[in-house]
Amino acid sequence: MELGVSELGKFAEGIVRAAGKLLLKLRKEPLELEEKADFSDLVTVVDRAVEKFLVESILERYPEHGIVGEEGIFEDERSDFATQWIIDPIDGTTNFIHNFPFYGISVGIVHKGVGIIGVVYNPSTDELFYGEKDKGAYVNGVALRLNKPIQLKEALVSTTMMWEDWRTKESVHSSIIEIYQKTRGLRMLGGAAISLCEIAKGTLNAYVMPALSTWDYAGGVIILKEAGGTITRLNGSELSLEKGGSLLAAHPSIHPDLLKIMERV
Amino acid sequence: MELGVSELGKFAEGIVRAAGKLLLKLRKEPLELEEKADFSDLVTVVDRAVEKFLVESILERYPEHGIVGEEGIFEDERSDFATQWIIDPIDGTTNFIHNFPFYGISVGIVHKGVGIIGVVYNPSTDELFYGEKDKGAYVNGVALRLNKPIQLKEALVSTTMMWEDWRTKESVHSSIIEIYQKTRGLRMLGGAAISLCEIAKGTLNAYVMPALSTWDYAGGVIILKEAGGTITRLNGSELSLEKGGSLLAAHPSIHPDLLKIMERV
Repeated sequence: MELGVSELGKFAEGIVRAAGKLLLKLRKEPLELEEKADFSDLVTVVDRAVEKFLVESILERYPEHGIVGEEGIFEDERSDFATQWIIDPIDGTTNFIHNFPFYGISVGIVHKGVGIIGVVYNPSTDELFYGEKDKGAYVNGVALRLNKPIQLKEALVSTTMMWEDWRTKESVHSSIIEIYQKTRGLRMLGGAAISLCEIAKGTLNAYVMPALSTWDYAGGVIILKEAGGTITRLNGSELSLEKGGSLLAAHPSIHPDLLKIMERV
Repeated sequence: MELGVSELGKFAEGIVRAAGKLLLKLRKEPLELEEKADFSDLVTVVDRAVEKFLVESILERYPEHGIVGEEGIFEDERSDFATQWIIDPIDGTTNFIHNFPFYGISVGIVHKGVGIIGVVYNPSTDELFYGEKDKGAYVNGVALRLNKPIQLKEALVSTTMMWEDWRTKESVHSSIIEIYQKTRGLRMLGGAAISLCEIAKGTLNAYVMPALSTWDYAGGVIILKEAGGTITRLNGSELSLEKGGSLLAAHPSIHPDLLKIMERV
């Protein structure tokens, strides 16, 4: 794809693109929905088919790699893989089901705990986001770089107020209202990895979420970091790609402002 | 466009499409932003340029028609026009500014108080929604009809909690939380007219808003009604295209459920 992009990266990009084609093909077939614990956590047959495709493709080429996936298709008792793929076969499942074109396939590759490659593909818009450690971030080959400072009042922020105890927590309400009042707008969009990529693109400027799994954000985090974004937990502590949690991802100019608002939650 | 679509409808479709081209052209030029009362109510030079184009096009062909537009470019002291155009040059201004592809140009035509033609065009996805009284609703010529019943638990609902006194009103919070818990998901997307069209398409299934102006919804309401959607005020009372207010727009299967939740707000 880009000069300097590694063999591993090229391979990852190729299988994610192929998985996107599979996703669109399966979209046209009727979805057999299956309910997990609640309606918003839907898993479709498509989810499993796409993860299975990715797992088989990875293991054929890199049998020594480990894989962490939302659907848990990869099974191996070892946990000490030097290189681990963290995959979400459909980031933004509800959007996918509703054909709202804000979803994607997300892959992050972690080597000895460090994120080295991120690939997120939105097949409905044919946008492929790619990031590789120290080699930059790209959308369809065009470099993404958050060089231009922005002000909080110009920012479009995506969040939720609906997560479990957040729903009724007074400090959450007052913080989200403060963000609303100090920014250009607030959105609830779904799709964690794709939201992170939209920050890299500048469509969104921040993403604030209370609790996510690593597969929700690994691919997007690696891309956004390479684009120059700042990503921490909501309390400002360092993010881990090996353990899920909260996320405060933003254009670097506004991350401190948002952190000041959110850390009191 | 479709068999039976009137001359007036064809004309409206034509100028809205042309306005969409103008919008995309102006998008590429730097936006000179101008602040109204608050950051979320941005008006760009584009807004005015598009409204001016529409007003001039309408008056050239139909000098006897009245026009109500967000930017108030049409000025005429009479208020008794038999036929009135209600136009929003950019529905979803913030999305437009951020290049989030969920915005459009919205036109509704009202004859003696009755909505007769709606045209909403999203130039970023090239989707043109058209509805004409008793002649059906279409997206890019494909008929839209909400025939298939849905259940509340399958619904994707767009709303806001951020409007003025809604932000801190306990009954709003509990109602929105109830909608969240009983549906597949909740979104905050911006773009009133375009949201109504997405309900006609089935991407969204309901749109719940506390306060809007007629230009925010006129075009979308006419289209969604023709597709079989149900639209009332939040308390269940009849909607007017001549006076703004709240909106509870939904797939007909779920409108009663949502009304029951929202009427206690």
